[in-house]
Amino acid sequence: MRIVLLGTGNLATRLGIALHSKHVEIIQVFGRSESKASYLSGLLGCSFTTSRHAIRMDADLYMLAVSEDAIPEVLSDAGIRKQLVVHTSGSISIDILSAVSENFGVFYPLQTLSKQKEVDFSTVPICIEASSGENLRMLSKLANLLSDQVYQIDSVQRRQLHLSAVFVCNFVNHFYSIGEKLLQEHQLDFNLLRPLILETANKAMLFSPPDVQTGPAVRNNQQIQEQHMKLLEQHPEWQQLYKLISSNIKLLQQ
Amino acid sequence: MRIVLLGTGNLATRLGIALHSKHVEIIQVFGRSESKASYLSGLLGCSFTTSRHAIRMDADLYMLAVSEDAIPEVLSDAGIRKQLVVHTSGSISIDILSAVSENFGVFYPLQTLSKQKEVDFSTVPICIEASSGENLRMLSKLANLLSDQVYQIDSVQRRQLHLSAVFVCNFVNHFYSIGEKLLQEHQLDFNLLRPLILETANKAMLFSPPDVQTGPAVRNNQQIQEQHMKLLEQHPEWQQLYKLISSNIKLLQQ
Repeated sequence: MRIVLLGTGNLATRLGIALHSKHVEIIQVFGRSESKASYLSGLLGCSFTTSRHAIRMDADLYMLAVSEDAIPEVLSDAGIRKQLVVHTSGSISIDILSAVSENFGVFYPLQTLSKQKEVDFSTVPICIEASSGENLRMLSKLANLLSDQVYQIDSVQRRQLHLSAVFVCNFVNHFYSIGEKLLQEHQLDFNLLRPLILETANKAMLFSPPDVQTGPAVRNNQQIQEQHMKLLEQHPEWQQLYKLISSNIKLLQQ
Repeated sequence: MRIVLLGTGNLATRLGIALHSKHVEIIQVFGRSESKASYLSGLLGCSFTTSRHAIRMDADLYMLAVSEDAIPEVLSDAGIRKQLVVHTSGSISIDILSAVSENFGVFYPLQTLSKQKEVDFSTVPICIEASSGENLRMLSKLANLLSDQVYQIDSVQRRQLHLSAVFVCNFVNHFYSIGEKLLQEHQLDFNLLRPLILETANKAMLFSPPDVQTGPAVRNNQQIQEQHMKLLEQHPEWQQLYKLISSNIKLLQQ
Protein backbone atom coordinates (compact mmCIF):
# COMPACT_ATOMS: atom_id res chain seq x y z
CA MET A 1 0.00 0.00 0.00
CA ARG A 2 1.39 3.34 -1.09
CA ILE A 3 0.33 6.35 0.95
CA VAL A 4 0.35 10.12 0.42
CA LEU A 5 0.29 11.84 3.80
CA LEU A 6 -1.36 15.25 3.81
CA GLY A 7 -0.41 17.37 6.81
CA THR A 8 2.70 18.07 8.88
CA GLY A 9 1.32 18.65 12.40
CA ASN A 10 1.43 16.44 15.52
CA LEU A 11 -0.97 13.84 14.17
CA ALA A 12 0.62 13.64 10.70
CA THR A 13 4.05 13.31 12.30
CA ARG A 14 3.09 10.62 14.83
CA LEU A 15 1.05 8.68 12.25
CA GLY A 16 3.76 8.93 9.61
CA ILE A 17 6.45 7.68 11.98
CA ALA A 18 4.22 4.82 13.19
CA LEU A 19 3.40 3.72 9.62
CA HIS A 20 7.01 4.08 8.49
CA SER A 21 8.19 1.89 11.41
CA LYS A 22 5.79 -0.83 10.19
CA HIS A 23 7.33 -0.61 6.68
CA VAL A 24 4.26 0.96 5.11
CA GLU A 25 5.42 2.93 2.08
CA ILE A 26 4.73 6.64 2.32
CA ILE A 27 5.50 8.08 -1.11
CA GLN A 28 4.90 11.80 -0.48
CA VAL A 29 4.20 14.36 2.21
CA PHE A 30 2.09 17.42 1.43
CA GLY A 31 2.15 20.52 3.64
CA ARG A 32 1.78 24.26 3.26
CA SER A 33 4.93 24.97 5.26
CA GLU A 34 8.03 24.01 3.25
CA SER A 35 10.24 23.63 6.33
CA LYS A 36 7.77 21.31 8.08
CA ALA A 37 7.00 19.26 4.95
CA SER A 38 10.68 18.92 4.20
CA TYR A 39 11.47 17.87 7.78
CA LEU A 40 8.71 15.24 7.94
CA SER A 41 9.51 13.82 4.50
CA GLY A 42 13.10 13.49 5.68
CA LEU A 43 11.97 11.40 8.65
CA LEU A 44 9.85 9.21 6.37
CA GLY A 45 12.36 8.86 3.54
CA CYS A 46 10.10 10.24 0.80
CA SER A 47 9.52 13.35 -1.30
CA PHE A 48 7.36 16.32 -0.35
CA THR A 49 5.38 19.09 -1.97
CA THR A 50 3.82 22.34 -0.84
CA SER A 51 1.64 22.64 -3.95
CA ARG A 52 -1.79 21.00 -4.04
CA HIS A 53 -1.40 20.61 -7.80
CA ALA A 54 1.79 18.59 -7.38
CA ILE A 55 0.21 15.94 -5.16
CA ARG A 56 1.03 12.53 -6.66
CA MET A 57 -1.90 10.67 -8.18
CA ASP A 58 -0.43 7.15 -8.01
CA ALA A 59 -1.03 6.33 -4.33
CA ASP A 60 -3.47 3.73 -2.97
CA LEU A 61 -4.43 5.84 0.02
CA TYR A 62 -4.58 9.57 0.71
CA MET A 63 -4.45 10.25 4.42
CA LEU A 64 -5.63 13.70 5.49
CA ALA A 65 -4.12 14.79 8.79
CA VAL A 66 -4.72 18.51 8.43
CA SER A 67 -6.82 20.81 10.65
CA GLU A 68 -10.59 20.26 10.42
CA ASP A 69 -11.16 23.55 8.58
CA ALA A 70 -8.77 22.58 5.79
CA ILE A 71 -10.25 19.14 5.04
CA PRO A 72 -12.75 20.13 2.32
CA GLU A 73 -10.23 22.31 0.54
CA VAL A 74 -7.02 20.31 0.39
CA LEU A 75 -8.10 17.63 -2.08
CA SER A 76 -10.97 19.53 -3.76
CA ASP A 77 -9.23 19.98 -7.11
CA ALA A 78 -6.47 17.41 -6.85
CA GLY A 79 -7.94 15.22 -9.58
CA ILE A 80 -8.60 12.19 -7.39
CA ARG A 81 -11.59 10.17 -8.58
CA LYS A 82 -11.30 6.59 -7.38
CA GLN A 83 -8.47 6.37 -4.88
CA LEU A 84 -9.25 5.83 -1.23
CA VAL A 85 -9.22 9.08 0.76
CA VAL A 86 -9.50 9.14 4.58
CA HIS A 87 -9.57 11.87 7.16
CA THR A 88 -8.38 11.47 10.75
CA SER A 89 -10.76 13.72 12.64
CA GLY A 90 -13.05 12.79 15.52
CA SER A 91 -15.67 15.43 14.92
CA ILE A 92 -16.13 15.47 11.13
CA SER A 93 -18.58 13.15 9.35
CA ILE A 94 -17.32 10.68 6.76
CA ASP A 95 -19.67 12.34 4.24
CA ILE A 96 -17.45 15.37 3.81
CA LEU A 97 -15.22 13.18 1.60
CA SER A 98 -17.96 11.94 -0.73
CA ALA A 99 -17.38 14.95 -2.98
CA VAL A 100 -13.66 14.16 -3.25
CA SER A 101 -13.59 10.50 -4.35
CA GLU A 102 -15.77 7.45 -4.89
CA ASN A 103 -13.85 5.68 -2.14
CA PHE A 104 -13.51 7.27 1.26
CA GLY A 105 -13.27 6.59 4.95
CA VAL A 106 -12.10 7.70 8.38
CA PHE A 107 -9.00 6.64 10.30
CA TYR A 108 -9.22 8.23 13.75
CA PRO A 109 -6.56 7.47 16.39
CA LEU A 110 -8.09 8.39 19.75
CA GLN A 111 -5.13 9.79 21.64
CA THR A 112 -3.63 13.11 22.68
CA LEU A 113 -0.58 13.60 20.51
CA SER A 114 2.05 16.21 21.06
CA LYS A 115 5.43 17.17 19.74
CA GLN A 116 6.98 16.79 23.19
CA LYS A 117 6.19 13.14 23.81
CA GLU A 118 6.38 9.94 21.80
CA VAL A 119 3.41 7.62 21.95
CA ASP A 120 3.20 3.83 21.75
CA PHE A 121 0.71 3.42 18.90
CA SER A 122 0.04 -0.24 19.76
CA THR A 123 -2.11 0.91 22.71
CA VAL A 124 -3.94 3.68 20.83
CA PRO A 125 -7.56 2.84 19.89
CA ILE A 126 -8.01 3.41 16.15
CA CYS A 127 -11.58 4.07 15.04
CA ILE A 128 -12.32 3.27 11.40
CA GLU A 129 -15.28 3.85 9.09
CA ALA A 130 -15.49 3.40 5.31
CA SER A 131 -17.76 3.93 2.31
CA SER A 132 -17.70 0.23 1.36
CA GLY A 133 -16.87 -3.18 2.78
CA GLU A 134 -13.75 -3.39 0.67
CA ASN A 135 -12.47 -0.01 1.88
CA LEU A 136 -13.24 -1.03 5.46
CA ARG A 137 -11.14 -4.19 5.08
CA MET A 138 -8.25 -2.16 3.70
CA LEU A 139 -8.40 0.35 6.60
CA SER A 140 -8.82 -2.45 9.11
CA LYS A 141 -5.66 -4.13 7.83
CA LEU A 142 -3.71 -0.90 8.09
CA ALA A 143 -5.10 -0.07 11.56
CA ASN A 144 -4.28 -3.55 12.86
CA LEU A 145 -0.69 -3.10 11.71
CA LEU A 146 -0.39 -0.15 14.09
CA SER A 147 -2.61 -1.00 17.04
CA ASP A 148 -4.11 -3.85 19.04
CA GLN A 149 -7.31 -1.87 19.51
CA VAL A 150 -9.22 -1.30 16.29
CA TYR A 151 -12.89 -0.32 16.47
CA GLN A 152 -15.49 0.15 13.75
CA ILE A 153 -17.26 3.37 14.74
CA ASP A 154 -19.77 5.36 12.70
CA SER A 155 -19.76 9.14 12.34
CA VAL A 156 -22.48 9.76 14.97
CA GLN A 157 -20.66 7.63 17.54
CA ARG A 158 -17.31 9.14 16.63
CA ARG A 159 -18.33 12.72 17.31
CA GLN A 160 -19.78 11.61 20.67
CA LEU A 161 -16.47 9.88 21.38
CA HIS A 162 -14.62 13.07 20.53
CA LEU A 163 -16.87 15.06 22.86
CA SER A 164 -16.13 12.57 25.66
CA ALA A 165 -12.43 12.91 24.91
CA VAL A 166 -12.67 16.66 25.43
CA PHE A 167 -13.97 16.01 28.95
CA VAL A 168 -11.51 13.27 29.98
CA CYS A 169 -8.44 14.79 28.31
CA ASN A 170 -8.65 18.51 27.47
CA PHE A 171 -10.76 19.53 30.46
CA VAL A 172 -8.89 17.19 32.79
CA ASN A 173 -5.58 18.70 31.69
CA HIS A 174 -7.00 22.15 32.39
CA PHE A 175 -7.77 21.02 35.94
CA TYR A 176 -4.18 19.87 36.27
CA SER A 177 -3.25 23.42 35.23
CA ILE A 178 -5.53 24.90 37.90
CA GLY A 179 -3.95 22.60 40.49
CA GLU A 180 -0.47 23.73 39.48
CA LYS A 181 -1.52 27.41 39.64
CA LEU A 182 -3.03 27.02 43.11
CA LEU A 183 0.20 25.45 44.35
CA GLN A 184 2.40 28.11 42.74
CA GLU A 185 0.47 30.78 44.64
CA HIS A 186 1.68 29.18 47.89
CA GLN A 187 5.21 28.29 46.75
CA LEU A 188 4.38 24.59 46.57
CA ASP A 189 5.90 22.12 44.13
CA PHE A 190 3.64 20.48 41.49
CA ASN A 191 5.46 17.21 42.26
CA LEU A 192 3.29 17.04 45.38
CA LEU A 193 0.23 16.44 43.17
CA ARG A 194 1.76 14.12 40.57
CA PRO A 195 1.32 10.80 42.43
CA LEU A 196 -2.32 11.73 43.08
CA ILE A 197 -2.91 12.52 39.41
CA LEU A 198 -1.44 9.20 38.32
CA GLU A 199 -3.32 7.16 40.93
CA THR A 200 -6.62 8.82 39.96
CA ALA A 201 -6.03 7.81 36.32
CA ASN A 202 -4.89 4.32 37.32
CA LYS A 203 -8.12 3.81 39.26
CA ALA A 204 -10.08 4.63 36.10
CA MET A 205 -8.20 1.78 34.36
CA LEU A 206 -9.72 -0.70 36.82
CA PHE A 207 -13.06 0.69 37.92
CA SER A 208 -16.12 2.55 36.72
CA PRO A 209 -15.34 6.17 37.78
CA PRO A 210 -18.58 6.88 39.74
CA ASP A 211 -17.81 3.83 41.92
CA VAL A 212 -14.52 5.32 43.15
CA GLN A 213 -15.56 8.98 43.49
CA THR A 214 -14.03 10.55 46.63
CA GLY A 215 -13.84 14.05 48.11
CA PRO A 216 -15.88 16.61 50.06
CA ALA A 217 -18.71 16.81 47.49
CA VAL A 218 -19.55 13.11 47.54
CA ARG A 219 -19.15 13.01 51.34
CA ASN A 220 -21.38 16.10 51.47
CA ASN A 221 -18.91 17.86 53.77
CA GLN A 222 -20.28 21.43 53.81
CA GLN A 223 -17.61 22.85 56.10
CA ILE A 224 -14.72 21.96 53.79
CA GLN A 225 -16.62 23.09 50.69
CA GLU A 226 -17.19 26.50 52.34
CA GLN A 227 -13.50 26.71 53.25
CA HIS A 228 -12.60 25.98 49.61
CA MET A 229 -14.97 28.68 48.34
CA LYS A 230 -13.22 31.16 50.61
CA LEU A 231 -9.77 30.06 49.43
CA LEU A 232 -10.90 30.64 45.84
CA GLU A 233 -12.09 34.22 46.47
CA GLN A 234 -9.38 35.61 44.20
CA HIS A 235 -10.54 33.30 41.38
CA PRO A 236 -14.29 33.82 40.87
CA GLU A 237 -14.25 31.67 37.70
CA TRP A 238 -12.80 28.71 39.65
CA GLN A 239 -15.33 29.31 42.43
CA GLN A 240 -18.07 28.98 39.85
CA LEU A 241 -16.53 25.76 38.52
CA TYR A 242 -16.15 24.39 42.05
CA LYS A 243 -19.83 25.00 42.86
CA LEU A 244 -21.10 23.62 39.58
CA ILE A 245 -19.02 20.44 39.67
CA SER A 246 -19.71 19.75 43.34
CA SER A 247 -23.45 19.87 42.80
CA ASN A 248 -23.02 17.73 39.65
CA ILE A 249 -21.09 15.10 41.60
CA LYS A 250 -23.98 14.76 44.04
CA LEU A 251 -26.47 14.48 41.15
CA LEU A 252 -24.52 11.77 39.34
CA GLN A 253 -24.16 9.66 42.49
CA GLN A 254 -27.92 9.49 43.01
CA MET B 1 7.33 3.79 68.86
CA ARG B 2 3.97 2.50 70.07
CA ILE B 3 0.92 3.80 68.24
CA VAL B 4 -2.81 3.94 68.97
CA LEU B 5 -4.70 4.22 65.70
CA LEU B 6 -8.03 6.03 65.93
CA GLY B 7 -10.34 5.31 63.00
CA THR B 8 -11.29 2.33 60.86
CA GLY B 9 -11.99 3.89 57.41
CA ASN B 10 -9.95 3.81 54.18
CA LEU B 11 -7.17 6.02 55.48
CA ALA B 12 -6.87 4.27 58.87
CA THR B 13 -6.80 0.90 57.13
CA ARG B 14 -4.20 1.85 54.49
CA LEU B 15 -2.02 3.67 57.04
CA GLY B 16 -2.29 0.87 59.58
CA ILE B 17 -1.30 -1.77 57.04
CA ALA B 18 1.62 0.35 55.78
CA LEU B 19 2.93 0.98 59.32
CA HIS B 20 2.46 -2.67 60.32
CA SER B 21 4.43 -3.81 57.24
CA LYS B 22 7.33 -1.61 58.42
CA HIS B 23 7.21 -3.27 61.85
CA VAL B 24 5.88 -0.20 63.63
CA GLU B 25 4.02 -1.38 66.72
CA ILE B 26 0.33 -0.53 66.72
CA ILE B 27 -0.96 -1.37 70.18
CA GLN B 28 -4.67 -0.56 69.78
CA VAL B 29 -7.33 0.37 67.26
CA PHE B 30 -10.22 2.60 68.28
CA GLY B 31 -13.44 2.78 66.25
CA ARG B 32 -17.12 3.30 66.83
CA SER B 33 -18.10 0.28 64.77
CA GLU B 34 -17.20 -2.93 66.59
CA SER B 35 -17.09 -5.03 63.40
CA LYS B 36 -14.74 -2.60 61.62
CA ALA B 37 -12.49 -2.06 64.66
CA SER B 38 -12.31 -5.80 65.25
CA TYR B 39 -11.48 -6.47 61.60
CA LEU B 40 -8.72 -3.85 61.39
CA SER B 41 -7.17 -4.86 64.73
CA GLY B 42 -7.08 -8.41 63.39
CA LEU B 43 -5.10 -7.24 60.35
CA LEU B 44 -2.68 -5.33 62.59
CA GLY B 45 -2.34 -7.98 65.31
CA CYS B 46 -3.44 -5.76 68.20
CA SER B 47 -6.40 -5.13 70.50
CA PHE B 48 -9.30 -2.79 69.80
CA THR B 49 -11.89 -0.76 71.66
CA THR B 50 -15.12 1.00 70.76
CA SER B 51 -15.14 3.07 73.95
CA ARG B 52 -13.31 6.40 74.09
CA HIS B 53 -12.74 5.83 77.81
CA ALA B 54 -10.92 2.57 77.16
CA ILE B 55 -8.30 4.11 74.85
CA ARG B 56 -4.88 3.08 76.16
CA MET B 57 -2.79 5.84 77.70
CA ASP B 58 0.65 4.23 77.27
CA ALA B 59 1.28 4.93 73.58
CA ASP B 60 3.93 7.31 72.18
CA LEU B 61 1.70 8.48 69.34
CA TYR B 62 -2.05 8.84 68.85
CA MET B 63 -2.91 8.89 65.19
CA LEU B 64 -6.36 10.29 64.34
CA ALA B 65 -7.67 8.97 61.03
CA VAL B 66 -11.35 9.74 61.63
CA SER B 67 -13.63 12.02 59.61
CA GLU B 68 -12.90 15.76 59.96
CA ASP B 69 -16.05 16.41 61.99
CA ALA B 70 -15.07 13.86 64.62
CA ILE B 71 -11.52 15.15 65.26
CA PRO B 72 -12.24 17.57 68.14
CA GLU B 73 -14.45 15.09 69.94
CA VAL B 74 -12.60 11.78 69.85
CA LEU B 75 -9.75 12.62 72.21
CA SER B 76 -11.40 15.50 74.10
CA ASP B 77 -11.79 13.64 77.43
CA ALA B 78 -9.36 10.78 76.89
CA GLY B 79 -6.97 12.02 79.56
CA ILE B 80 -4.02 12.62 77.25
CA ARG B 81 -1.79 15.46 78.45
CA LYS B 82 1.69 15.06 77.05
CA GLN B 83 1.63 12.31 74.43
CA LEU B 84 2.02 13.23 70.78
CA VAL B 85 -1.32 13.45 68.96
CA VAL B 86 -1.57 13.89 65.17
CA HIS B 87 -4.43 14.21 62.75
CA THR B 88 -4.27 13.15 59.09
CA SER B 89 -6.50 15.72 57.41
CA GLY B 90 -5.61 18.08 54.58
CA SER B 91 -8.11 20.80 55.43
CA ILE B 92 -7.91 21.10 59.24
CA SER B 93 -5.38 23.35 60.98
CA ILE B 94 -2.83 21.87 63.38
CA ASP B 95 -4.24 24.19 66.08
CA ILE B 96 -7.34 22.09 66.59
CA LEU B 97 -5.15 19.68 68.58
CA SER B 98 -3.64 22.27 70.96
CA ALA B 99 -6.56 21.72 73.36
CA VAL B 100 -5.94 17.96 73.44
CA SER B 101 -2.25 17.67 74.32
CA GLU B 102 0.95 19.67 74.79
CA ASN B 103 2.46 17.77 71.86
CA PHE B 104 0.66 17.66 68.56
CA GLY B 105 1.14 17.55 64.81
CA VAL B 106 -0.21 16.58 61.40
CA PHE B 107 0.60 13.51 59.30
CA TYR B 108 -1.17 13.96 55.95
CA PRO B 109 -0.67 11.39 53.16
CA LEU B 110 -1.67 13.11 49.92
CA GLN B 111 -3.30 10.30 47.98
CA THR B 112 -6.76 9.02 47.04
CA LEU B 113 -7.27 5.90 49.10
CA SER B 114 -10.05 3.42 48.56
CA LYS B 115 -11.11 0.03 49.77
CA GLN B 116 -10.98 -1.36 46.24
CA LYS B 117 -7.32 -0.72 45.48
CA GLU B 118 -4.05 -1.15 47.32
CA VAL B 119 -1.58 1.70 47.20
CA ASP B 120 2.21 1.72 47.23
CA PHE B 121 2.89 4.04 50.15
CA SER B 122 6.51 4.58 49.13
CA THR B 123 5.34 6.91 46.34
CA VAL B 124 2.76 8.79 48.43
CA PRO B 125 3.81 12.31 49.48
CA ILE B 126 3.46 12.62 53.26
CA CYS B 127 3.04 16.19 54.56
CA ILE B 128 4.06 16.72 58.17
CA GLU B 129 3.76 19.59 60.62
CA ALA B 130 4.41 19.62 64.39
CA SER B 131 4.16 21.79 67.49
CA SER B 132 7.90 21.50 68.21
CA GLY B 133 11.18 20.57 66.58
CA GLU B 134 11.34 17.35 68.57
CA ASN B 135 7.84 16.30 67.49
CA LEU B 136 8.71 17.16 63.92
CA ARG B 137 11.78 14.91 64.03
CA MET B 138 9.67 12.06 65.40
CA LEU B 139 7.04 12.45 62.65
CA SER B 140 9.72 12.84 60.00
CA LYS B 141 11.31 9.55 61.07
CA LEU B 142 7.96 7.78 60.89
CA ALA B 143 7.03 9.34 57.53
CA ASN B 144 10.40 8.42 56.01
CA LEU B 145 9.83 4.82 57.03
CA LEU B 146 6.74 4.76 54.80
CA SER B 147 7.56 7.07 51.91
CA ASP B 148 10.37 8.51 49.83
CA GLN B 149 8.53 11.82 49.61
CA VAL B 150 8.22 13.62 52.92
CA TYR B 151 7.42 17.34 52.95
CA GLN B 152 7.22 19.83 55.80
CA ILE B 153 4.04 21.79 55.06
CA ASP B 154 2.29 24.32 57.30
CA SER B 155 -1.48 24.47 57.84
CA VAL B 156 -2.09 27.32 55.37
CA GLN B 157 -0.18 25.50 52.62
CA ARG B 158 -1.82 22.19 53.46
CA ARG B 159 -5.37 23.43 53.00
CA GLN B 160 -4.35 24.96 49.65
CA LEU B 161 -2.83 21.62 48.72
CA HIS B 162 -6.06 19.88 49.65
CA LEU B 163 -8.06 22.33 47.51
CA SER B 164 -5.74 21.60 44.56
CA ALA B 165 -6.22 17.88 45.17
CA VAL B 166 -9.99 18.33 44.84
CA PHE B 167 -9.43 19.76 41.35
CA VAL B 168 -6.87 17.22 40.08
CA CYS B 169 -8.46 14.16 41.69
CA ASN B 170 -12.13 14.50 42.70
CA PHE B 171 -13.17 16.80 39.86
CA VAL B 172 -11.04 14.93 37.34
CA ASN B 173 -12.66 11.65 38.37
CA HIS B 174 -16.06 13.27 37.90
CA PHE B 175 -15.06 14.14 34.33
CA TYR B 176 -14.10 10.52 33.78
CA SER B 177 -17.66 9.73 34.94
CA ILE B 178 -19.14 12.20 32.45
CA GLY B 179 -17.04 10.64 29.68
CA GLU B 180 -18.29 7.18 30.58
CA LYS B 181 -21.92 8.41 30.65
CA LEU B 182 -21.60 10.06 27.24
CA LEU B 183 -20.25 6.82 25.78
CA GLN B 184 -22.95 4.69 27.40
CA GLU B 185 -25.61 6.84 25.71
CA HIS B 186 -24.22 5.70 22.35
CA GLN B 187 -23.45 2.09 23.28
CA LEU B 188 -19.71 2.72 23.32
CA ASP B 189 -17.23 0.97 25.58
CA PHE B 190 -15.36 3.01 28.24
CA ASN B 191 -12.21 1.07 27.25
CA LEU B 192 -12.06 3.38 24.22
CA LEU B 193 -11.22 6.30 26.55
CA ARG B 194 -8.88 4.52 28.96
CA PRO B 195 -5.61 4.90 26.97
CA LEU B 196 -6.39 8.61 26.53
CA ILE B 197 -7.00 9.05 30.27
CA LEU B 198 -3.70 7.38 31.12
CA GLU B 199 -1.69 9.28 28.51
CA THR B 200 -3.14 12.60 29.70
CA ALA B 201 -2.00 11.80 33.25
CA ASN B 202 1.39 10.54 32.05
CA LYS B 203 1.98 13.82 30.23
CA ALA B 204 1.41 15.67 33.51
CA MET B 205 4.23 13.57 35.02
CA LEU B 206 6.67 15.09 32.52
CA PHE B 207 5.40 18.55 31.63
CA SER B 208 3.74 21.63 33.05
CA PRO B 209 0.06 21.08 32.12
CA PRO B 210 -0.58 24.43 30.36
CA ASP B 211 2.33 23.61 28.01
CA VAL B 212 0.62 20.47 26.70
CA GLN B 213 -2.99 21.70 26.58
CA THR B 214 -4.76 20.40 23.47
CA GLY B 215 -8.34 20.46 22.14
CA PRO B 216 -10.87 22.73 20.40
CA ALA B 217 -10.82 25.43 23.12
CA VAL B 218 -7.09 26.09 22.93
CA ARG B 219 -7.16 25.88 19.11
CA ASN B 220 -10.15 28.26 19.24
CA ASN B 221 -12.13 26.00 16.90
CA GLN B 222 -15.62 27.53 17.10
CA GLN B 223 -17.28 25.05 14.76
CA ILE B 224 -16.43 22.02 16.89
CA GLN B 225 -17.33 23.81 20.11
CA GLU B 226 -20.77 24.62 18.66
CA GLN B 227 -21.21 21.00 17.59
CA HIS B 228 -20.38 19.89 21.13
CA MET B 229 -22.88 22.32 22.64
CA LYS B 230 -25.55 20.80 20.41
CA LEU B 231 -24.58 17.24 21.37
CA LEU B 232 -24.95 18.23 25.04
CA GLU B 233 -28.47 19.62 24.62
CA GLN B 234 -29.90 16.87 26.83
CA HIS B 235 -27.42 17.79 29.60
CA PRO B 236 -27.73 21.52 30.30
CA GLU B 237 -25.46 21.22 33.37
CA TRP B 238 -22.66 19.73 31.23
CA GLN B 239 -23.24 22.41 28.58
CA GLN B 240 -22.66 25.02 31.28
CA LEU B 241 -19.46 23.26 32.38
CA TYR B 242 -18.28 22.97 28.77
CA LYS B 243 -18.72 26.72 28.16
CA LEU B 244 -17.15 27.76 31.43
CA ILE B 245 -14.08 25.53 31.10
CA SER B 246 -13.52 26.36 27.42
CA SER B 247 -13.42 30.09 28.14
CA ASN B 248 -11.18 29.40 31.16
CA ILE B 249 -8.74 27.43 29.01
CA LYS B 250 -8.35 30.40 26.70
CA LEU B 251 -7.83 32.74 29.67
CA LEU B 252 -5.15 30.58 31.26
CA GLN B 253 -3.20 30.28 28.00
CA GLN B 254 -2.87 34.04 27.65
